[in-house]
Amino acid sequence: MNYKKNSPNILILDVDGVMTTSKFLYSEKGKVFKVFGAHDSDGLKMIKKYIKILFVSADKRGFKISKKRIQDDLGYKIKFVSAEKRYDFIKKMDLRKVIYMGDGIFDKKILSDCLYGIAPKNARVEARKAADFVTNSNSGEGAVLDACIQIIKKYFNNV
Amino acid sequence: MNYKKNSPNILILDVDGVMTTSKFLYSEKGKVFKVFGAHDSDGLKMIKKYIKILFVSADKRGFKISKKRIQDDLGYKIKFVSAEKRYDFIKKMDLRKVIYMGDGIFDKKILSDCLYGIAPKNARVEARKAADFVTNSNSGEGAVLDACIQIIKKYFNNV
Amino acid sequence: MNYKKNSPNILILDVDGVMTTSKFLYSEKGKVFKVFGAHDSDGLKMIKKYIKILFVSADKRGFKISKKRIQDDLGYKIKFVSAEKRYDFIKKMDLRKVIYMGDGIFDKKILSDCLYGIAPKNARVEARKAADFVTNSNSGEGAVLDACIQIIKKYFNNV
Amino acid sequence: MNYKKNSPNILILDVDGVMTTSKFLYSEKGKVFKVFGAHDSDGLKMIKKYIKILFVSADKRGFKISKKRIQDDLGYKIKFVSAEKRYDFIKKMDLRKVIYMGDGIFDKKILSDCLYGIAPKNARVEARKAADFVTNSNSGEGAVLDACIQIIKKYFNNV
Repeated sequence: MNYKKNSPNILILDVDGVMTTSKFLYSEKGKVFKVFGAHDSDGLKMIKKYIKILFVSADKRGFKISKKRIQDDLGYKIKFVSAEKRYDFIKKMDLRKVIYMGDGIFDKKILSDCLYGIAPKNARVEARKAADFVTNSNSGEGAVLDACIQIIKKYFNNV
Repeated sequence: MNYKKNSPNILILDVDGVMTTSKFLYSEKGKVFKVFGAHDSDGLKMIKKYIKILFVSADKRGFKISKKRIQDDLGYKIKFVSAEKRYDFIKKMDLRKVIYMGDGIFDKKILSDCLYGIAPKNARVEARKAADFVTNSNSGEGAVLDACIQIIKKYFNNV
Repeated sequence: MNYKKNSPNILILDVDGVMTTSKFLYSEKGKVFKVFGAHDSDGLKMIKKYIKILFVSADKRGFKISKKRIQDDLGYKIKFVSAEKRYDFIKKMDLRKVIYMGDGIFDKKILSDCLYGIAPKNARVEARKAADFVTNSNSGEGAVLDACIQIIKKYFNNV
Repeated sequence: MNYKKNSPNILILDVDGVMTTSKFLYSEKGKVFKVFGAHDSDGLKMIKKYIKILFVSADKRGFKISKKRIQDDLGYKIKFVSAEKRYDFIKKMDLRKVIYMGDGIFDKKILSDCLYGIAPKNARVEARKAADFVTNSNSGEGAVLDACIQIIKKYFNNV
């Protein structure tokens, strides 16, 4: 497909199962903790000079947790977008210039149709099959750092 | 066995080791957290139009945690049923129309005798041996989504 | 060795790395949580009619957490015994009638010298090498249930 | 390289991904918990009579958690040193007499240039490739105990 030669203009990442292990801790009061890893912020630091970064999450109950990590602490923008509306939300930005990283069963269409789709090693099989690149690390164990290294190698080596 | 050609009329799922990793966090005050995963709610959403869903749990100390996740947040019914009474509880509903998903050593009789028994990949070996289907994912990592996809494929494809 | 034909009169189990995953969660205030699993209480229930059960732990900072789970909630006795004093503590009970389950580097001498030494699958290599039996499950994922099934099979089948 | 025959005079260890699993738990309020393991304190106790021990961490938000575990509870010194300044910080101590254990992508230069570089089994591939020794255990599951045993075997056997 010819558009696969485009230059990307944005990197969009899901949060749960991409930046986290996809597990969360529940108490009697609800969803309290998500599990993040130490390596991914290194990758985001390396790539942010090359491309715009946006996080999306469909997790309403855990959104404040995700926002605390992604936006308040790491300094990247995060937006709540439901699973149902995600495809159209991203389509508006010109899917063929989007690098997308996702792990869920409903991510497969975006991963197929975007410029370059990335799935973590432990993503749903449906997402891995639709992706152009599957990371060597699991989510929460460096999958996003793997992805950033791969993107820089593929698209920005001579920048 | 002839009854294996029945149509299912209910999907009954254990909670610990099916919807959770089967691990829990203890502080000095007791059992505080259980570990759930992000994929399973997608599977339940997909299957709920085809079949009635009921969760059972024998974990008294952690029941409020399970109830918060399963009933309050995801909207499915959960019932406390002790391990000893579970077989008879389910038998009353006509075992041969029940799809059951369980992971423990005491689940093996139900898994053998129900219409269709499902065990997560990381279930006890006794449960896996008794099950008709073992998922590709561990519990807390998409085992219930795997199960829902399999059930829809097997029983509801032409519905 | 002839004593290996003895009958056991007590089952002694370490807590961390045997009943737990051996991991613990630290906050700014210290050790707050330990990670236990759902299967092991089933094994202890099965074996308690055959043999006396005692838990030992050398973890001072986390002892209240261990005690809450083992003694208050499950109803088994737990005793604080430092790693240095554990061998002599157990020796006083007649090592050759003790079944011991441990996972640490300092457990190897007890595991070698007791009647029947058991190590979880994920125990230190030094403990696994010294043990008579290594479980199929990791600690916190059913290692103690595996151990109980093995002990009943080996020593109490005809009781 | 000739300096590789030096005697070490200090063991410097990173904290996240070396003493911890490299994962942390986030709530709405931020980074609350890190996950440590039970085996590593045994290794540090074994080695401390042979060599000076210093921990370094670049994790500002989680530094109080690391300090609580490493300094307050285990009794070893910990220092905040940013990733960018770590190489120069260690260089001042004479890199060729330093044993360094690290897991991150930015640790590779130190691991290459120090006397003896050690990476946990689950370290970033870049760190593992630069290290002289890769442990058999993952971080938080005994990697530091593995490292201590290896160092004692290699450098202090005849001391």
